[in-house]
Amino acid sequence: MKFSSSLLFAGFVYYADDVLSAPSPNPKTAWVRQSRPRKAASSVGKRWLNGTTAQPVVGSCSDTYYTQVLAPKSNVWGGLTDVEAASVTRWLFAQSEFNLTVSDEAGEWDNTILLVELMHPNKTDVLNYLDNAGPVPDRYAHVVLDHRACEEPYYEDILVGPIDPSGVKNGTTRWEPLEYPYTRKTAGRVRNLDADADDTLYSQWIYKISATISDITLDLWGGTALGLDNDTLSIWGIDPLWQDDGRVVRWDTFWSNTVDNFDAQTLLPLGLYFRSDVTGRDPCQWKLEGWYYNGVFYETTEAFRSAYYTPGFAKLGANVEGNWARTDQFGPVLPQDNAHPPASITPSGARFAVDAESKWIQWMDFSFYVGYQRDTGLSLWDIRYKGERVLYELGLQEALAHYAGQDPIQSGTSYLDSYYGFGPYAFELVKGYDCPAYATYLNTSFYVSETTHTHLNSLCLFEYTADYPLQRHSTSDYVAVTKNTYFTIRSVSTVGNYDYMFSYSFYMDGSINVEVRASGYIQSAYFANNEEYGYKIHDNLSGSMHDHVLNFKADFDIKGINNTVAVVNQVSVSTTYPWSNGKARNTMKLEKSYIETENQSRLFWGANSATQYSVINKDAVNKYGEYRGYRISPSLGAIHLTVEDSSNLVNAARWANHDIQVTKHHDTEPRAAHAYNNQDVHNPPINFDAFFNGENLTQTDLVLWLNLGMHHIPHTGDLPNTVFSTAHAGLSFSPLNYLDGDPSRQTVNQVRIDYGGGNVSAIKTFGQDEGSCAVEYTPVEVDLWDYKGDVVVRKFPFDPNDPYYETDAIV
Amino acid sequence: MKFSSSLLFAGFVYYADDVLSAPSPNPKTAWVRQSRPRKAASSVGKRWLNGTTAQPVVGSCSDTYYTQVLAPKSNVWGGLTDVEAASVTRWLFAQSEFNLTVSDEAGEWDNTILLVELMHPNKTDVLNYLDNAGPVPDRYAHVVLDHRACEEPYYEDILVGPIDPSGVKNGTTRWEPLEYPYTRKTAGRVRNLDADADDTLYSQWIYKISATISDITLDLWGGTALGLDNDTLSIWGIDPLWQDDGRVVRWDTFWSNTVDNFDAQTLLPLGLYFRSDVTGRDPCQWKLEGWYYNGVFYETTEAFRSAYYTPGFAKLGANVEGNWARTDQFGPVLPQDNAHPPASITPSGARFAVDAESKWIQWMDFSFYVGYQRDTGLSLWDIRYKGERVLYELGLQEALAHYAGQDPIQSGTSYLDSYYGFGPYAFELVKGYDCPAYATYLNTSFYVSETTHTHLNSLCLFEYTADYPLQRHSTSDYVAVTKNTYFTIRSVSTVGNYDYMFSYSFYMDGSINVEVRASGYIQSAYFANNEEYGYKIHDNLSGSMHDHVLNFKADFDIKGINNTVAVVNQVSVSTTYPWSNGKARNTMKLEKSYIETENQSRLFWGANSATQYSVINKDAVNKYGEYRGYRISPSLGAIHLTVEDSSNLVNAARWANHDIQVTKHHDTEPRAAHAYNNQDVHNPPINFDAFFNGENLTQTDLVLWLNLGMHHIPHTGDLPNTVFSTAHAGLSFSPLNYLDGDPSRQTVNQVRIDYGGGNVSAIKTFGQDEGSCAVEYTPVEVDLWDYKGDVVVRKFPFDPNDPYYETDAIV
Repeated sequence: MKFSSSLLFAGFVYYADDVLSAPSPNPKTAWVRQSRPRKAASSVGKRWLNGTTAQPVVGSCSDTYYTQVLAPKSNVWGGLTDVEAASVTRWLFAQSEFNLTVSDEAGEWDNTILLVELMHPNKTDVLNYLDNAGPVPDRYAHVVLDHRACEEPYYEDILVGPIDPSGVKNGTTRWEPLEYPYTRKTAGRVRNLDADADDTLYSQWIYKISATISDITLDLWGGTALGLDNDTLSIWGIDPLWQDDGRVVRWDTFWSNTVDNFDAQTLLPLGLYFRSDVTGRDPCQWKLEGWYYNGVFYETTEAFRSAYYTPGFAKLGANVEGNWARTDQFGPVLPQDNAHPPASITPSGARFAVDAESKWIQWMDFSFYVGYQRDTGLSLWDIRYKGERVLYELGLQEALAHYAGQDPIQSGTSYLDSYYGFGPYAFELVKGYDCPAYATYLNTSFYVSETTHTHLNSLCLFEYTADYPLQRHSTSDYVAVTKNTYFTIRSVSTVGNYDYMFSYSFYMDGSINVEVRASGYIQSAYFANNEEYGYKIHDNLSGSMHDHVLNFKADFDIKGINNTVAVVNQVSVSTTYPWSNGKARNTMKLEKSYIETENQSRLFWGANSATQYSVINKDAVNKYGEYRGYRISPSLGAIHLTVEDSSNLVNAARWANHDIQVTKHHDTEPRAAHAYNNQDVHNPPINFDAFFNGENLTQTDLVLWLNLGMHHIPHTGDLPNTVFSTAHAGLSFSPLNYLDGDPSRQTVNQVRIDYGGGNVSAIKTFGQDEGSCAVEYTPVEVDLWDYKGDVVVRKFPFDPNDPYYETDAIV
Repeated sequence: MKFSSSLLFAGFVYYADDVLSAPSPNPKTAWVRQSRPRKAASSVGKRWLNGTTAQPVVGSCSDTYYTQVLAPKSNVWGGLTDVEAASVTRWLFAQSEFNLTVSDEAGEWDNTILLVELMHPNKTDVLNYLDNAGPVPDRYAHVVLDHRACEEPYYEDILVGPIDPSGVKNGTTRWEPLEYPYTRKTAGRVRNLDADADDTLYSQWIYKISATISDITLDLWGGTALGLDNDTLSIWGIDPLWQDDGRVVRWDTFWSNTVDNFDAQTLLPLGLYFRSDVTGRDPCQWKLEGWYYNGVFYETTEAFRSAYYTPGFAKLGANVEGNWARTDQFGPVLPQDNAHPPASITPSGARFAVDAESKWIQWMDFSFYVGYQRDTGLSLWDIRYKGERVLYELGLQEALAHYAGQDPIQSGTSYLDSYYGFGPYAFELVKGYDCPAYATYLNTSFYVSETTHTHLNSLCLFEYTADYPLQRHSTSDYVAVTKNTYFTIRSVSTVGNYDYMFSYSFYMDGSINVEVRASGYIQSAYFANNEEYGYKIHDNLSGSMHDHVLNFKADFDIKGINNTVAVVNQVSVSTTYPWSNGKARNTMKLEKSYIETENQSRLFWGANSATQYSVINKDAVNKYGEYRGYRISPSLGAIHLTVEDSSNLVNAARWANHDIQVTKHHDTEPRAAHAYNNQDVHNPPINFDAFFNGENLTQTDLVLWLNLGMHHIPHTGDLPNTVFSTAHAGLSFSPLNYLDGDPSRQTVNQVRIDYGGGNVSAIKTFGQDEGSCAVEYTPVEVDLWDYKGDVVVRKFPFDPNDPYYETDAIV
């Protein structure tokens, strides 16, 4: 069935069943718990007849929602239900050995729960369930505890389970350290370098240091950073902290506060830096180790102060907010820009099918399940094409932003963003701007501080027709052209200053594209002495050079799990042929080989794009005897990290220095990185290097680890925000001898025109809908008043009937 | 003014003025002569009220055409008028020294006119006109004569002029050899290797050879190639011909004919090849030099025949047309594919301005003139951004398709497509498929055989809104997002089997993208022994590997003509800092340099995209002291030719082996290639290598020669046609410190939503049009019956009032 406009409110009824099956919540929260079908087009595509008495000459265009379907299997990556999460949380608080404190009441010396989410079952078990009619894998909760009630604070990953739909199973639910998915075997424990960052670090250290030079901050910038409400400066610093020689050392710097809501602080560095040894939890043992200003290092505050008050000391300017740092419309309005720009409409409504409950999606002959996790956000599972699995898993693993600069802050910054999490920051999308107005918007949820936050409308699903066709050919007798309509699922995570837009798109030719685009505010540097690390982009500002590298896991299963990576090199050769008169000819040929083992599986895109990589199945040939496969190629650019053996990262991001890396699949190597790799960079919980131990890669279950990213040397055009049009990267997975021909021939959305002598003799439209319909075009703005942000439901105590709105990942 | 729907027919009236000013044609041909404004949306966007009595509740959406403007200056690249071309043609026939025969009556031993088109004036003269109020440069016709009435036939480029609007100027119009734009100084003469290809080659040679083995062709393939109407086979071969050792040698092979209209012959090779020495014009001197079949070379027909009739001779199968080779809909219709896919509409009509007479286009703060030539098709001139020239010229120079294979045909094929011409093959675009239905379509014209052919609707201009925004940033308090609406001008040239789609797009952030996509039929190889050169893609077929390389000229003028190319390398370094405790840190930095001379100006995209190239002006800094410039980067991939020192090409395409090449601008080096470079590959009329003679490139007028392209190893998904989704290449020219901030902040098509606690407190839409309007969505098919193909107007004798339709580049 399709939802039609008249069933809009009936949608609630549909979900009521599910709600009633849950133990306590009443129906008013149903829409929060489940992603709900949105109007196909809340304004564009609005029914012409609604509320009018006019009779249109043609029927109204459709605003039907997606077709409702039932997923063939449970979504085993779909997350815990509210009831499960509440039950596990309650159970955790009952385990006295954890000595837990409710987050709202916890101090820095209390233990808390950081995360309760579904543990992804092992692929082995899932395949048994999906393919062999085996049982649904047992459900376990992945819990992260923050043990701070001790001198050596640590994070602890544990498993709690098995759990049922009604929650913890009395008598059988246990907890155990979660260790098997990590390369470091320390019972799931990782030290916590930030245990005192909530309060002590600032109150007992940072602000006190700042206070010692408040005369200077007032003189230089007219402000102070003392932890007071009227502070006009902020202080923050490097990530990861320096972790060499058994010490924990931080660099901090001053930033201007903004004077309004615009999130421009990363454009306002002030150029004064100080170093602290903050090893251990006793601030009395911490040491201020020096200051850095305008190219000079001062070992003590006294030395800095003395220099500062020496005549001739160069006092450099501040970076101050202004319209240059605000994203609002600014400058002369361009000709006709006030008129409506083009917009896409869906005359027939959505042409895809969704099981909103299970988050299973079908478009044309693709289908997949949607997963969502705190660390990495959106992921796709069991991607099938024409009924057969092509990818078991496809999703982000980690995102690195590695800066460099003459100053210790930029030089010391290498954000590993899963520490902050992509899940918590996938804010509500803006209809008609982030995605087409007619897109289907689904919700996502994450757990934090005994609450479940639901990002409303944070995934969008839509079809779009590209501005160029998929196929065309013309002669003087006929022309044949095929529309290029594709399907996209998208989320945007704003991790601090940057907005990462993740789009997975599916095409009629069987290809799948993964795209990342970056917008938002750059993190910039103070200009002084930074010429070798960036352009000067404002009065006292340098666009701090940095690399974005984002790792994706692509667990291909081409015609079964046992696959091989083929390498085809296109090379220039000089060679003779039987027909060449014995003369050598300068030409080219293909060199075909296969990746044999993990000793040769860390690869680069070849020079001049002359190397083609593909995942093939040597036991599955097509009709013409070629191995069936999918090719992996950059579509919008893809890079690896410039910095070799980064001092900031040490072993924390060993996935970043190649383009494609291939490993044998192990249930013990589910992810390339751990959210706390930045807490122990020498010995991180997951060291990607450890995945490579020479295993054979011929016809076995393979995982590809693929890097996307951009080198970014910001220039004035990055102010106020970087634009998506140039900050992008993308990969294409495209069928390679996978079928016996181009599958896009199946579409009816093509035309052939036979013509000659100025007349058309035939038009073939292959059964396309040729009906007309009426649309009322309304700019989407009227509906943007529905924007809400995140909905929060308390889990402990479980309070499902009292949701409230709060958009903040840290509660 | 804007054209409105009610002025549709008045459009003719508007052009009537112009028509009347011409000497003889009556108005009925006016619409042929001039590109006409098309309906903004011939179906999508159709006015709701037309022909109905219903009263809509809101006003109808607009279907206004572009805003009509007058170009500030004459388009000096716009081509000859009909009158000029006819006048020059008449004048040429009057020059007895040329001994010309009208094309329709000419045989292989007659001289004919191949081309009459506008000679582009020198940049020096144009800048004097555009910038210094100097005179309009004198107009000259570029004429190509085909001298075949001699033993050593040759093409001859000549200039005829100056000419007036009324045509040849009595007394002052002269002709002279055109030599200055070519590196070879032979008075514009190039030998013609194809003088006998129209008739003698086939009638006296190819078919006679084929006849000698018709028993074998009948036995192998059940057909013959004898030049008869019922032939079921065709014969054709390599391009360029072998030109070594003073001989002209060709290889030919057999192909199945198709049994219907589909243009699939390049999918039907049969695997038998023969070599002929065709030096000179006397077929009696030509020599058959051998046969090649299934890996064996036979020196004589007798040897081949003897082997063929030897027991055990392997007779391999034929490639035969079938649905696999046809582009029509084929296979099961996918779910919901019969419903309308998404479509773009323009609620406000076109938001750009056009001078259709002068082909000058304005969108937002970009403007440019359109040029069009026989050899290279569409080009853009005087591209201005915010009123200042950024590029003097941007356009295709040449397109190479270099094949390789075990057989002599694929190995010997390196098409230089300007020989065939991009202008003659830019067929009418299909509305709603090649470009949005609402696009503005303009005509283009080319001269051939004393006629002017007008490709109706062969350029399209349109705005589109991308599926992703240009900018966005969100926090827990607000979200700001900007639409990404861009403007594109597009043409498609189908040079034989391949359809090249050329798109130039302009963005709100000031960037300009150049994209090429390839669809159409691959040229394939016979499968036998070709494993090292392609995949087996059908029963007896190999996807012949090939490189597409397309050279573009980008004559940047950033803040004046004197510019420099900057190179910024992002490199990994290990270095100490004043603040690093004396410890070396592994990090990265920028190495900035400049291209000093033409000795160092043939460049590659760097490994890992770590090298950024830009054109900057060292004498023009922005507010912050950085050089203003435009960055040049691949956006959708860009490659150079794999083959080094190609035996096929020798010196004919020396532009193909690098990615970016920079020269000092000279009026004598207007183009990287000549249409007849393939006629004398050792000593081509333009040898691009000769452009590089060590000239200084610091703050002088620079030209960038940029290669786009794709390595193509066809697989089954290329059958029946290669798809645009994966066969693409693109370059981005983006502002680099060019302005003081991001210019997209000027657009009103952005929104800021302030929210919190589940409520929106403010929505800023910056003056966007918030009105609703009504659109009738009708699929475009109903209008495709207007497809006409090319209109031809005879020039000699000039017969402007009797146009006829004929879509064929060779008359």
